[in-house]
Amino acid sequence: MERRFLSKATFFDPVQELIQKVEARMRSQADKNHPELAAAIYHLLSSGGKRIRVAITLLVGGMVHADIERLVTLAASIELLHTATLVHDDLIDGSLLRRGIPTINAQWTPAATVLTGDFIFARAARLAAETDSLAVMKLFSETLAVIVSGEIRQLFGKRLLTGREDYNQRIYAKTASLFETATTSAAILANVESKWLDCARQYGYEIGMAFQIIDDVLDFTGEQATVGKPVGSDLRQGLITLPALYYLEKFPEDHEFQAFLAGKPAREINFDLLLGNIKQSGAVEQAIIEAENYAHRGLAALQDFPDGIEKQALVDLAYFTVTRSK
Amino acid sequence: MERRFLSKATFFDPVQELIQKVEARMRSQADKNHPELAAAIYHLLSSGGKRIRVAITLLVGGMVHADIERLVTLAASIELLHTATLVHDDLIDGSLLRRGIPTINAQWTPAATVLTGDFIFARAARLAAETDSLAVMKLFSETLAVIVSGEIRQLFGKRLLTGREDYNQRIYAKTASLFETATTSAAILANVESKWLDCARQYGYEIGMAFQIIDDVLDFTGEQATVGKPVGSDLRQGLITLPALYYLEKFPEDHEFQAFLAGKPAREINFDLLLGNIKQSGAVEQAIIEAENYAHRGLAALQDFPDGIEKQALVDLAYFTVTRSK
Repeated sequence: MERRFLSKATFFDPVQELIQKVEARMRSQADKNHPELAAAIYHLLSSGGKRIRVAITLLVGGMVHADIERLVTLAASIELLHTATLVHDDLIDGSLLRRGIPTINAQWTPAATVLTGDFIFARAARLAAETDSLAVMKLFSETLAVIVSGEIRQLFGKRLLTGREDYNQRIYAKTASLFETATTSAAILANVESKWLDCARQYGYEIGMAFQIIDDVLDFTGEQATVGKPVGSDLRQGLITLPALYYLEKFPEDHEFQAFLAGKPAREINFDLLLGNIKQSGAVEQAIIEAENYAHRGLAALQDFPDGIEKQALVDLAYFTVTRSK
Repeated sequence: MERRFLSKATFFDPVQELIQKVEARMRSQADKNHPELAAAIYHLLSSGGKRIRVAITLLVGGMVHADIERLVTLAASIELLHTATLVHDDLIDGSLLRRGIPTINAQWTPAATVLTGDFIFARAARLAAETDSLAVMKLFSETLAVIVSGEIRQLFGKRLLTGREDYNQRIYAKTASLFETATTSAAILANVESKWLDCARQYGYEIGMAFQIIDDVLDFTGEQATVGKPVGSDLRQGLITLPALYYLEKFPEDHEFQAFLAGKPAREINFDLLLGNIKQSGAVEQAIIEAENYAHRGLAALQDFPDGIEKQALVDLAYFTVTRSK
């Protein structure tokens, strides 16, 4: 894949105004009767999410001429579903910071955090229902089940080396499933023929897979200040991602890694050594190539759509996904 | 209201077979790929819930001739939504037992409990979507928001004496909203005219309110062995329910109660004295009369429906709601 570095995420440009509408729609879901809850939701919504799921929804929908109002509702639903899963994630991981900003979990009791997540799930579900499409609603609920199911598998599967297939299932559940639902639902709203539905679905799937692989790469290569969490935190928590998998394929005998997998306490593991070895092994570059392969297939799925600013932005988004540094 | 004591809950009889179908539908929602999760869901579903929400859904739907398959799907969705909220509730309260049986929370980590609840929410949402009614789906998501919103209010409002109106809002959110959604949705599936929709909605609302008041009464009068939790546990946890509200209207100066409301540590409160005083004051009987008033209005809402075994069972259910001892 040709390396086209984007100096900034230009793909947002065609939908900048609509994104503001989506933000307003999301904020309007806070319950004014609950000042604490409303404050928590405003805090979450201003915590600097990239809104890449919002953009991809609006761009695909724009490309196939979906109704704008329903599209805004759908995008708000997708982003709130994502937000709700993050709230429960942070509780589960005990994370006190996300993107360098205190989590709900850091400020509230676990009880309030669980309920805040539940409330946002409820609002996301209401917005999904407001798209007035049963097909969208079914995708929405199925995706929620896939995401949660993946989290449960992850919870019980830490420090387990289960190979590439398991990794692919995990990142599908974590990220690609929602990207796929976003692009498929946007196409559903435009009542396109099934060929276009399949193309939209595939674009979302491939970009989502690429996006999560790069997220996992950035856990090895990113600066703590940019990524918002310590380098190597996945591995430190026992989560084996693609660069680590490639490294182990090359050096199955690595003593430190095998000891970690065998259950040696994390505090006795020399993570700096392990992370250094992984970074020098070429495993990170190999993972980036894998992400590029996904992005490439995403671009191929776009090919037959009519040219226009949305399609061009979706091409840019594919490149951004694999060249971003945060 | 005439006191008609039912020796057993006969209202289940006309829908006994359908309830088994609903049970099977609920069990089929467990993810076979996750043995731990599936086990947790089977455990939850066999923990002795009364299935009164299932019965009321099936009976109302049967009375207005809703399609049986969709009705079974709806009833499974309603009961799973209820189950999911109980899972998160138990986590929030730190409850180790429910109905005398260990909760998921007692056996699992908080992380697994949160995710189990989320997974059941997702399955409930999928079933709601499978009723193929957008109106049902909207009610479903709105009800989830109402329930969670009520829990948040309760979380921030413990030991606050906020009066009858607040109590009514609280029990609506906790219980009546889902009863109302169950009966309204059942009628929606039969495409009845709005007059019948209103009657079905009102029956669900009134019975739900009565049901929760009696739940709150049983917290004062029930046997621990029957109710499955210590007598007076609401009050001990700072939750002021109807009998306590009536008591305070009669004896606003009660020293022990006022000290408790003012924030005196629970371990320094003589709860046995306080509970004894409330029980002797007539406040419990007054609360039962209030529940009977709700049940009476529920019966009135049934009046114009055509006679039949379902309608008769719904009459019995109304009586059962206010005469039950557990």
